[in-house]
Amino acid sequence: MRVRIDLAYDGSEFSGWARQPGLRTVQGVVESAITQVLRLPDTIQTVCAGRTDAGVHARGQVIHADLPDTTADRQSLEAATDDILRHRLARALPEDITVWDVQAVSADFDARFSALRRRYVYRLWDEPCKVDPLLRRFVVAYPHRLDLTVMAQAGSLLLGLHDFAAFCRPRPGSTTIRTLLELMPVRLPDSMIEISVVADAFCHSMVRSLAGALVACGRGARDLEWLAAHLAASQRAHDVTVMPAHGLTLEEVTYPEAGQLAARADQARSRRDLDCGCGS
Amino acid sequence: MRVRIDLAYDGSEFSGWARQPGLRTVQGVVESAITQVLRLPDTIQTVCAGRTDAGVHARGQVIHADLPDTTADRQSLEAATDDILRHRLARALPEDITVWDVQAVSADFDARFSALRRRYVYRLWDEPCKVDPLLRRFVVAYPHRLDLTVMAQAGSLLLGLHDFAAFCRPRPGSTTIRTLLELMPVRLPDSMIEISVVADAFCHSMVRSLAGALVACGRGARDLEWLAAHLAASQRAHDVTVMPAHGLTLEEVTYPEAGQLAARADQARSRRDLDCGCGS
Repeated sequence: MRVRIDLAYDGSEFSGWARQPGLRTVQGVVESAITQVLRLPDTIQTVCAGRTDAGVHARGQVIHADLPDTTADRQSLEAATDDILRHRLARALPEDITVWDVQAVSADFDARFSALRRRYVYRLWDEPCKVDPLLRRFVVAYPHRLDLTVMAQAGSLLLGLHDFAAFCRPRPGSTTIRTLLELMPVRLPDSMIEISVVADAFCHSMVRSLAGALVACGRGARDLEWLAAHLAASQRAHDVTVMPAHGLTLEEVTYPEAGQLAARADQARSRRDLDCGCGS
Repeated sequence: MRVRIDLAYDGSEFSGWARQPGLRTVQGVVESAITQVLRLPDTIQTVCAGRTDAGVHARGQVIHADLPDTTADRQSLEAATDDILRHRLARALPEDITVWDVQAVSADFDARFSALRRRYVYRLWDEPCKVDPLLRRFVVAYPHRLDLTVMAQAGSLLLGLHDFAAFCRPRPGSTTIRTLLELMPVRLPDSMIEISVVADAFCHSMVRSLAGALVACGRGARDLEWLAAHLAASQRAHDVTVMPAHGLTLEEVTYPEAGQLAARADQARSRRDLDCGCGS
């Protein structure tokens, strides 16, 4: 029996998503909680849509897990469905993780490979001494005033199917070709800026590097020619700033209709087989 | 020379506004920072518009302070104005306090007594297992679904000039008569509710008690007759819940035009001479 779990977390006190020995990670805490609530003999394994880095937050993370058929305790199996599991998980999880939803899904559903696209938002203020202290854990204070018109132009330039090698931390054997669907800065009241970034998938540190490139253009330190040259490059650029983790939030992951899940997963797997599939 | 300072703070790690020996309070930290930045021989004294309780936040707190004429250091006096002082204070203050603005004002300006009205917002979710973890420090998870129509009716009933004794922690010699100008719940997306509360001034624990009364009506545990009876009462009601501190934020304090400051202060002082003037 496969379950899909939609969840949110404040990444401030986690060493990222991925389980690591001796560190407090979201995956480690979530897997322990599921294992405990369902009284499983071995720690359950989960797969997530976006492997967020240390300090990165999520409002729309999606994971899947296969509950073992051998689950001995009948009561545990009954508890494994939907609202009951959600409520038990809510009690077992710390207050920096929230479970929005638990659903039984078909084995076709793969949180990572079935995803059509991921949406991240990078938040910053460009008036650094005037940061709302209630929002400071997920918004970055930036020391220079930014020109949103230039940033929007920069964002448009990067849209489409490209090799984003200049904006990715390389991983051996993985591709850096992605389809960037949206890269749009919006100025909100009180000097807050949100950069919305949507792609089919992201390679490692890509969102924070794209935000860094937009910000460099927006403050006038770089121009669109610089950006275009990087888009044409085939390796990591060393003059693109990876923006701080705490400004980044995974907001939403989109999946196809149920009938298309397996086809989508096959397509994604074939293209990014050796790739991290991550989004931070 | 009198200065007005507009500031914000995350109240989570403070034992409230008011200075207390051995405790981390907003007043203590702010007064130390001003004293240090201006190199004053003695700790400066400040007066605030709303003395927030432990755990209560502020986005629109206003204070005033009189800088001593004897300030020996010429450089310090020059630094005492506007943007320079604001930047120096920003560097001296911890990240859970932000200074929005520093202005030299006339001696007529009194942060507490010149204020025309204070606006607080109480934030809660009525779907307790579905709390956005990024907002949890200033929004309260409430375990029952709330009827906003009933809450709005309850709010309307309390508007105007009344003795709010039933909703106040009594202080000897202080009046509990206040003019309530707004008490309005609004439902936002994702089960978030904001209760906006505006009055000329508040007595101790009044905002959190008003929120508690509205919430009791909204969940159906109390009705409007119960509320009307409390409004007619002349002492503290023991069946009104004081809602948790961390849901409350002082959002805004409004002052009259410069020419009206002294008149307003005289009027407020005469009416509430022995009163705390506080708002939490």
